Amino acid sequence: MNERKAQFFNAHLPNTLQPNSCGEAFAPSNIALAKYWGKRDYELNLPTNGSLSISLGTLGTRTTLKPADKDSVSLNGKSLSLDTPFAQKVIAFIDLFRRSQPLPLTIETHNTIPTAAGLASSASGFAALTLAINDLFNLDLAQTTLSAMARIGSGSASRSLWHGFVQWDKGEQTDGSDSIAQPIASNWRDLRVGLLALSHAEKHTTSRDGMTHTAETSPLFSVWPAQAERDKAQIHQAIVNQDFHELGATAEANALAMHATMLAARPSLTYFLPETLATIAAVQKARADGLPVYLTIDAGPNVKLLYLAKDEADIRHTFAGVACVNPFQ
Amino acid sequence: MNERKAQFFNAHLPNTLQPNSCGEAFAPSNIALAKYWGKRDYELNLPTNGSLSISLGTLGTRTTLKPADKDSVSLNGKSLSLDTPFAQKVIAFIDLFRRSQPLPLTIETHNTIPTAAGLASSASGFAALTLAINDLFNLDLAQTTLSAMARIGSGSASRSLWHGFVQWDKGEQTDGSDSIAQPIASNWRDLRVGLLALSHAEKHTTSRDGMTHTAETSPLFSVWPAQAERDKAQIHQAIVNQDFHELGATAEANALAMHATMLAARPSLTYFLPETLATIAAVQKARADGLPVYLTIDAGPNVKLLYLAKDEADIRHTFAGVACVNPFQ
Repeated sequence: MNERKAQFFNAHLPNTLQPNSCGEAFAPSNIALAKYWGKRDYELNLPTNGSLSISLGTLGTRTTLKPADKDSVSLNGKSLSLDTPFAQKVIAFIDLFRRSQPLPLTIETHNTIPTAAGLASSASGFAALTLAINDLFNLDLAQTTLSAMARIGSGSASRSLWHGFVQWDKGEQTDGSDSIAQPIASNWRDLRVGLLALSHAEKHTTSRDGMTHTAETSPLFSVWPAQAERDKAQIHQAIVNQDFHELGATAEANALAMHATMLAARPSLTYFLPETLATIAAVQKARADGLPVYLTIDAGPNVKLLYLAKDEADIRHTFAGVACVNPFQ
Repeated sequence: MNERKAQFFNAHLPNTLQPNSCGEAFAPSNIALAKYWGKRDYELNLPTNGSLSISLGTLGTRTTLKPADKDSVSLNGKSLSLDTPFAQKVIAFIDLFRRSQPLPLTIETHNTIPTAAGLASSASGFAALTLAINDLFNLDLAQTTLSAMARIGSGSASRSLWHGFVQWDKGEQTDGSDSIAQPIASNWRDLRVGLLALSHAEKHTTSRDGMTHTAETSPLFSVWPAQAERDKAQIHQAIVNQDFHELGATAEANALAMHATMLAARPSLTYFLPETLATIAAVQKARADGLPVYLTIDAGPNVKLLYLAKDEADIRHTFAGVACVNPFQ
């Protein structure tokens, strides 16, 4: 186990954990409107730029923990061998809390994200796991501390602690103490997210490896962190102003700039499939035809749409197979 | 007519032109290995970065000029109305030489580029036209002066004055006097170019407009000129060393970096079609499977392959419909 990670967890945990009979939590998925892309610290998952997301309401992960005779892991009701990558990641994360204390657990994870949505579940997964651990052991930790813990599991999990709009500041400190995610207060309730799943294949390059390769080899990466900060500030202001076009245009430009940094990596990296490009063109065409819709794309081939509640019928009509999400439900 | 353009032509031309009975010239197409992308002067077509190309041997433009009673323009044997964009561009360029002198001409242009190759013809077109004018009026201008004149017609035409490898230095002077293209001496003769025409549709955005939009709005453009210069120097060295992998990898990375600057423009610009992305993936796969092949892509959807003569059979087998070009033929 990594010493700096261990140090962080030690600093926030009691020496001995006392489990309840059960710990349980739900955390939503989130879609970054201003992307997290690039780490300044690979151990603590500290980013080179801040990011800003919207959580996806009831789509996410529910995790239940119960003391048991030995560790066991299940995903969506199916028992997993402890040597699967999923089980290993979960156990390694729980070990950051258990340290040397023998506290075997039954770990049940349910993703409420339909597989067909093509959404990654690591953000909601680590967030729900962190919250469930807090519940199981009555840790009563501050939300920002829980967010920092989830971040160490997966960077974007830091934002899945809350519903609605969430901002994750980059911070400056080497221990990550000021790299904190926090919700953005907003009464804006008619923003919608459409999920267009173009591929369910496992991605060829993990986000972690993609970030590293891009940061190390892309000549265009050097200007990304500052641009990402500007985009985050602009999107924050668009949320305050409830300015959909400003939010959508900036989020779309930010996502494509992120993908551009990868395309320029050496060798080049892209998560786009031909269908991704066709969908980008379809969104641009729909917009030119008068439908207020913007897109964002994470480190994968699938496209997420941003639109307003009033346009949902048109969105469904224009984008066959779209899964429409009300983030505020 | 633009004053600075007029000034440049005046400085190199006699006051009165004396036509022969015929002027004729051929100029090859060229493919940039280090791309020209961005203008520091829109009137004189002065670039923000140097570029380096390989000419395509017998693929190009042949132009014949003859004194006549009135101007007439034909393309590939077909007479064109003088109000077509093609005829207008040609006449406007010839007027830079004729100035106020009445010298009507029959202008015959033949492209030896099969339409199916998906290659632009403005580079070879303006180069051949410049050379034919030099021939018709016995101007006996230096090659570098002719190159500068062709450049004012179309930036990349500056490189189509020569066969083989050609370098166009960016220059620093405001009058463009040091923004000069010149051939690179080389005995390297087994480099080949494969043309994959994926679309013959007119492009939605001219290179000129694409460059302007990218330079003005893409946050990633600021680092492009310096990177392009580094790539040009690296490709020059690879030519000296006859290092195919270095040349191919750098040319491919350079082209994709150029396209990345566009993808990050606001709003985003791409010349890629879904088929372009599929072809990029096919080239990467062929390379992973052991075939030494690299790609480059201009401001359009079509893909050009770089390979060595020894691999031509494999290239034809792997990329159906490829048009194989020996640049040194």
